[in-house]
Amino acid sequence: MDVAGTRGKLAHEAAALDEADALYGKRAAFALDEDTVYLDGNSLGALPVAVSARLAEVVGHEWGRLRIRAWDEAGWWASPERIGDRVGRLVGAAPGQVVVGDSTSVNVFKAVVAAVRMARERSADRDEILVDAATFPTDGYIAESAARLTGCRIRAVAAGAMTGEMGERTAVALVNHVDYRTGRLHDLPGVTASAHAAGALVVWDLCHSAGALPVGLDAHGVDFAVGCTYKYLNGGPGSPAYLYVRREHQPRFDSPLPGWNSHSEPFAMSPAYTPADGATRGRVGTPEVLSLLALDTALDVWDDVDLTAVRAKSLALTDFFLRCVEEYVPRGRVESVTPAAHAERGSQVGLRCPGAGAVMGELIRRGVVGDFRPPDVLRFGFTPLYTGFADVERAAGILAGVLGTPLL
Amino acid sequence: MDVAGTRGKLAHEAAALDEADALYGKRAAFALDEDTVYLDGNSLGALPVAVSARLAEVVGHEWGRLRIRAWDEAGWWASPERIGDRVGRLVGAAPGQVVVGDSTSVNVFKAVVAAVRMARERSADRDEILVDAATFPTDGYIAESAARLTGCRIRAVAAGAMTGEMGERTAVALVNHVDYRTGRLHDLPGVTASAHAAGALVVWDLCHSAGALPVGLDAHGVDFAVGCTYKYLNGGPGSPAYLYVRREHQPRFDSPLPGWNSHSEPFAMSPAYTPADGATRGRVGTPEVLSLLALDTALDVWDDVDLTAVRAKSLALTDFFLRCVEEYVPRGRVESVTPAAHAERGSQVGLRCPGAGAVMGELIRRGVVGDFRPPDVLRFGFTPLYTGFADVERAAGILAGVLGTPLL
Repeated sequence: MDVAGTRGKLAHEAAALDEADALYGKRAAFALDEDTVYLDGNSLGALPVAVSARLAEVVGHEWGRLRIRAWDEAGWWASPERIGDRVGRLVGAAPGQVVVGDSTSVNVFKAVVAAVRMARERSADRDEILVDAATFPTDGYIAESAARLTGCRIRAVAAGAMTGEMGERTAVALVNHVDYRTGRLHDLPGVTASAHAAGALVVWDLCHSAGALPVGLDAHGVDFAVGCTYKYLNGGPGSPAYLYVRREHQPRFDSPLPGWNSHSEPFAMSPAYTPADGATRGRVGTPEVLSLLALDTALDVWDDVDLTAVRAKSLALTDFFLRCVEEYVPRGRVESVTPAAHAERGSQVGLRCPGAGAVMGELIRRGVVGDFRPPDVLRFGFTPLYTGFADVERAAGILAGVLGTPLL
Repeated sequence: MDVAGTRGKLAHEAAALDEADALYGKRAAFALDEDTVYLDGNSLGALPVAVSARLAEVVGHEWGRLRIRAWDEAGWWASPERIGDRVGRLVGAAPGQVVVGDSTSVNVFKAVVAAVRMARERSADRDEILVDAATFPTDGYIAESAARLTGCRIRAVAAGAMTGEMGERTAVALVNHVDYRTGRLHDLPGVTASAHAAGALVVWDLCHSAGALPVGLDAHGVDFAVGCTYKYLNGGPGSPAYLYVRREHQPRFDSPLPGWNSHSEPFAMSPAYTPADGATRGRVGTPEVLSLLALDTALDVWDDVDLTAVRAKSLALTDFFLRCVEEYVPRGRVESVTPAAHAERGSQVGLRCPGAGAVMGELIRRGVVGDFRPPDVLRFGFTPLYTGFADVERAAGILAGVLGTPLL
């Protein structure tokens, strides 16, 4: 079959896949435009349309009219825990273990310092923090700071090799669930179990997995987890991050950022710090309410969604994209850095490509929005709630066009 | 003159003062309602009406249509420094020294740890952090954590006595510019100078002074300052806080929270941390853009405002309130905890009152919104941009009514 014939066949197949997709209806909940294929929802999720009206109410009525009373009457004060529970459901955490607030970086700091302290309660000579060698940079910078402040040293180890590297000096391992560049999905149950076998604790960064696949924090015995909410969870630009502290660890969770919001009686204004119980202990200062409540409404779209179905569609989307790329793009122009095995793949595809920066610029000009990760990776995120198979086919076709194949 | 006559006279005087007030026109920029006297703007500032439309645009157009491109095209990425400069003008900081982001608590942590590190570069045995004994609690909790992580000890000292307490072991003094409970204004130039004379550094918490009076950070040689933006600056619930690092200290500012947003090349995604120059070094993770841009628009109202005029009106408002209270409320029912001397007064009045919690509840029911600070303080904030003299007179009259004086 010639290229045009192949393209017709795959476009036809895409239409059939969209037709059969039980999640297809979710597209209507998002602000999308017909002339763009948005494959950057793993960087900033699209706007859930309901957010606009809700935020207008929060500003105009709650802030504008209730003012200070809104902390109680509109439920602002308790939102970080309430919304935390909503996020928790999506990452496999029973209620009472997740709190929303601050940035991912700040939450990494809380989790790593607290984990070191907890590991040392068990054995005082644990002084090593293992960091996923390909980590998103901020995790590494913050871990380094945590190490310096707690007298530990950092050792960078490939996430895939971490299981064999845990030892009696290891206090904590900080690992990304999905590699932000390659899209590789790491073995959360395995790494967690090996940390525990070595007497260490583990902190998972879920930025690139939450909302893309089932995580199972409770089920796999994870100690701590952090993540952002502006990627697959569509919470809006810089929407607050979250912190998971496993229930059994909460009484010993000793935060390096004990702000007044985490006090057992915050309005007693006591000079002595007495930490609150539960997830509240992970709070710090006053939450950024507008961003927080935008996230709250953004999460509504998930209420009837099963993460298993999201995962199935995610894998089908990335499979289909890789297949279209293979069919349309001439051999040797791009090379996937994303694992072929489903068990090792997140919800994104990274393609190594010479001149990737310029190629992504041209893709964006032609309406395919992904992003460029230096030095040479084109990164495409597949957000199952609003990306369809026809989008995927179209993106691959345009990529082939940018790379010089006269397809149409 | 009888009480009714006194009341008529003061109401008349209030009307004349409002008539002569050059800031009176600013009221129209805020969402206020006629049936409420809002004297809690020192806790949550009223809504500047322009915020609603701006936020609708940020959500609908920038997030909804530009999506990821908005980080550049809508200027999101550079907002923390740009808005920091706008806050800087209001606290006497030349551009390039203030960055907006995170909560006040988190910024206290950055400032205190960095100050300790800097003090120790000069002299390794500085191991004492002085904390204002009447500090807003979170500052004390966070300072305690900073002390624990840097091997320092905390000593609580009354802000008024701090000048005599600085010694060669003092690394840093953390002081509130205005006491959140009493409204006492502390001597920023004097305490700063005495810290410097002792070879120590000083961190000022401006939560209760920024937007209420001129601060003069640059002029008085302040080292570090932090503050929130949701009180007198009207940035919205939990709007991001700010950090001031004096220009000459910036090259040695060594943040304990070196997130990727503070990297010299954040998008190079380098595993090695190289801090950015300037105020950017105080950033951490991704800013909460919706809250940040609400603050941006909220600051527009300040563009043509001179803080000297704000201060003059603020003192006139608190003077007038104290006078009305003295005239209307029977002797002995309340006692001001706010200094009578202008040089020692912020922009709030605290009245000690038996049963203050219940009294404030009743005041709020009758439309006078202040707040209660345990154990027995009624706290009233006077925000010169939207509080008028007639409001003040009315509030005092209602307070007298609640306290059992049949005034009307």
